[in-house]
Amino acid sequence: MDDIEVETLEEPTLRDPVLIEGLPGVGHVGKLAAEHLLEEFESETVARVYSDEFPPQVGVDDDGVTSLACAEFHAVETDERDLLVLTGDHQAQSHSGHYHLTDAFLDLAASFDVGGIYALGGVPTGELVEEPDVLGAVNDADTVEELTDAGVEFREGEPAGGIVGVSGLLLGLGERRDLSGACLMGETSGYLVDPTSAQAVLEVLETVLGFEVGYDSLEERAEEMKEVAEKIQEMQNQQQGMPTDDDLRYIG
Amino acid sequence: MDDIEVETLEEPTLRDPVLIEGLPGVGHVGKLAAEHLLEEFESETVARVYSDEFPPQVGVDDDGVTSLACAEFHAVETDERDLLVLTGDHQAQSHSGHYHLTDAFLDLAASFDVGGIYALGGVPTGELVEEPDVLGAVNDADTVEELTDAGVEFREGEPAGGIVGVSGLLLGLGERRDLSGACLMGETSGYLVDPTSAQAVLEVLETVLGFEVGYDSLEERAEEMKEVAEKIQEMQNQQQGMPTDDDLRYIG
Amino acid sequence: MDDIEVETLEEPTLRDPVLIEGLPGVGHVGKLAAEHLLEEFESETVARVYSDEFPPQVGVDDDGVTSLACAEFHAVETDERDLLVLTGDHQAQSHSGHYHLTDAFLDLAASFDVGGIYALGGVPTGELVEEPDVLGAVNDADTVEELTDAGVEFREGEPAGGIVGVSGLLLGLGERRDLSGACLMGETSGYLVDPTSAQAVLEVLETVLGFEVGYDSLEERAEEMKEVAEKIQEMQNQQQGMPTDDDLRYIG
Amino acid sequence: MDDIEVETLEEPTLRDPVLIEGLPGVGHVGKLAAEHLLEEFESETVARVYSDEFPPQVGVDDDGVTSLACAEFHAVETDERDLLVLTGDHQAQSHSGHYHLTDAFLDLAASFDVGGIYALGGVPTGELVEEPDVLGAVNDADTVEELTDAGVEFREGEPAGGIVGVSGLLLGLGERRDLSGACLMGETSGYLVDPTSAQAVLEVLETVLGFEVGYDSLEERAEEMKEVAEKIQEMQNQQQGMPTDDDLRYIG
Repeated sequence: MDDIEVETLEEPTLRDPVLIEGLPGVGHVGKLAAEHLLEEFESETVARVYSDEFPPQVGVDDDGVTSLACAEFHAVETDERDLLVLTGDHQAQSHSGHYHLTDAFLDLAASFDVGGIYALGGVPTGELVEEPDVLGAVNDADTVEELTDAGVEFREGEPAGGIVGVSGLLLGLGERRDLSGACLMGETSGYLVDPTSAQAVLEVLETVLGFEVGYDSLEERAEEMKEVAEKIQEMQNQQQGMPTDDDLRYIG
Repeated sequence: MDDIEVETLEEPTLRDPVLIEGLPGVGHVGKLAAEHLLEEFESETVARVYSDEFPPQVGVDDDGVTSLACAEFHAVETDERDLLVLTGDHQAQSHSGHYHLTDAFLDLAASFDVGGIYALGGVPTGELVEEPDVLGAVNDADTVEELTDAGVEFREGEPAGGIVGVSGLLLGLGERRDLSGACLMGETSGYLVDPTSAQAVLEVLETVLGFEVGYDSLEERAEEMKEVAEKIQEMQNQQQGMPTDDDLRYIG
Repeated sequence: MDDIEVETLEEPTLRDPVLIEGLPGVGHVGKLAAEHLLEEFESETVARVYSDEFPPQVGVDDDGVTSLACAEFHAVETDERDLLVLTGDHQAQSHSGHYHLTDAFLDLAASFDVGGIYALGGVPTGELVEEPDVLGAVNDADTVEELTDAGVEFREGEPAGGIVGVSGLLLGLGERRDLSGACLMGETSGYLVDPTSAQAVLEVLETVLGFEVGYDSLEERAEEMKEVAEKIQEMQNQQQGMPTDDDLRYIG
Repeated sequence: MDDIEVETLEEPTLRDPVLIEGLPGVGHVGKLAAEHLLEEFESETVARVYSDEFPPQVGVDDDGVTSLACAEFHAVETDERDLLVLTGDHQAQSHSGHYHLTDAFLDLAASFDVGGIYALGGVPTGELVEEPDVLGAVNDADTVEELTDAGVEFREGEPAGGIVGVSGLLLGLGERRDLSGACLMGETSGYLVDPTSAQAVLEVLETVLGFEVGYDSLEERAEEMKEVAEKIQEMQNQQQGMPTDDDLRYIG
């Protein structure tokens, strides 16, 4: 087995496609957003990426059937441009693995003639946010204006510490390939899975890429999370201290 | 030295063979089961796999003679099908090592024309189980029925978190080679070496593969472990709390 | 992507150049000193080194524009000899990475016909130092006298534990290439970013390499750090114990 | 730079040589023993092994001159057989590194036509030992008798957990090359550098290899360590509990 193996399932010709990345991360904002696109639009899975950088693990579905840890690329047709949506349940296990996986993702994106990258994620604020803003970072200064017009905020010194992982490297390694990329980060507490923040990120994407999606399912899930958050705040009032990451990461 | 080195000792032609994996894991269920097959049937060691992924270590036998850490493949003849039994004292030390060792194991299995995989292991229940069930997971939905008929349980959401390590990857990477595989996991407390659970797993294998083994030695060992368990429960009644994994892992 | 990638921006012919290394380390002494040279002299960035040994990360500037983690080589013209100044925000993430990055740095230095190496850094004293000495270590005993004449101290048993990281390896691997190298280590508390120590190191370099720089900006920054140090000592007088590394590493 | 680089300094023809390994380990028994041979006999350094598996570090001698982390091979002439003595200040930093370094050591030993291996080390007893025995393990059962005659003890179940690191792998990987090897382990508390245990190991080697060495310097050092041990026992009597490894590792 090679360190990274790409399994190509379909080779559709995409119309002026962009890469949308939504792997697990802060508040699962990027993952929720990318998966919402797959729920709302018709999509086909075009490739899977397997790697010794993913956990040595199979998932087991409700019928007892296993599937090897992987990342998946899906083709989505929208009114103006096609989307190549990258999803998965895992990040790389090592620093160098992030580099090599991202490189493989960019190779695959290039094979579909992708013309731009949108890496979706969350930025932790440390407190519950009712109306999350979307922060931006880009590898090409020329795109700041368009994103600002779409409601993205560019703030000095944010995100503090830069952008780590595949989202950051898609921009960094993408730039080395002359591929324009933006990271769209929804504000989120960092404590809870955050469908509201995912919606905020998608609303920016709608404006920039000219598609429209419904949000009923995300809003429903946000409602559930709000109840979870309220219960936690009650608990806090009775007890003391903020819940730890570990308490909350798995809620939702 | 290559990262993985295969030493071939014998090259018998096996009759319709299946791979049986029993490396160390929860309750040592898989390891006990595989080693029981080697005790009860005649077997020959056909190959050893050495790797820099195993601990940098030699074992020392009772005569003071060393042996390098390795995994071993043994050929076992049974009435209907031959077995290629994979045993050893070690798992890989890194995530990527699990992938590459499993890949080497599958290469070796392919060289013996193996037609299926049974990865044996335990699934922790957190409490002592008198009559353990055997949980199943497969990489080929078509095999669920046959296993269900043999008494294997398929339960939604179990095992939680999927299957990690060589057992999981034999199914995941096996599927990529079109090799049908099942993981048979005996329920076990997770606290003690568990011969009873190993027997439960072997009884399923007997039905599926059409061989018969005696269980005297396993039952004897189970009797001993039962006494150990009773002593521990006495201790618990006197003291408090469950024994930790560390207390018990080396008992038995 | 290769494990290490060199992006060459300019290929100037340098006059009798030496390599000056100032990557992050104790008190950021080397980094401050190297960056001060770039501020005070005209310089051009001649190469960037990217590597999967750096954190998988992009920095984000005040306009929201990202830049991939890298190390940079800058050419600086001074009166007598040209300088090839190595700066960056990161060290390698693994032991083997230090070796391979240093090797790549030496390859690049060789391509500019560098005739010697000055690795700049700090040596922790554990207490605030008003007038820091500069300790030396060399890979070529013949250079001790010249450095001693320039005010460098060579003390038995210091630095205790040798020199770790790129600075040490530039000398160790440099020696294997017959490249003379010196490590110049300014005394520093180890608790604070230390512009005074950086100045002490640069004053040695001025003597050895025959250039002159102003120190206004470093002295200003030293003044600020002195105030920080005084506030910390006040705090200590009120409380107890020395501040920990973690408290102070990010001050300054 | 390659992951492992061998620098050959001399290529003497050795008379019926054996490899003696004495790298850092429990009580520094092996290291003390090997270095004592180099002090007592004339020796020449014949090769150095550099590796990215060693710490990324240079040592600094009393003149301020650096030397890159390495392992060294020395040729020693004795009455009956020549010795190839392997010494150094470091072990590999990773599990796979132990394998690959040991393999390189065996390649080098083969280039000198080494006919056997003696890996020297300590075995921790947890308490101070006045007259340490020497435990043995071999990769060739035929050599047990000769070693037993020389006073080596072979005890069932010892060393518990096998032999880890270069010493173990020299036997394990040596066996795969048909090279006979023995590990000689002096009993030692595990808390202190132990010259007495080193002497016990060397006395076995004298008998087996037919050379004679003086022990004045080792005995002197043992005397010093005895005083250290007595002081520690006094401290213990006044206080409570055994000193930890960390307290004592650096004493001596």
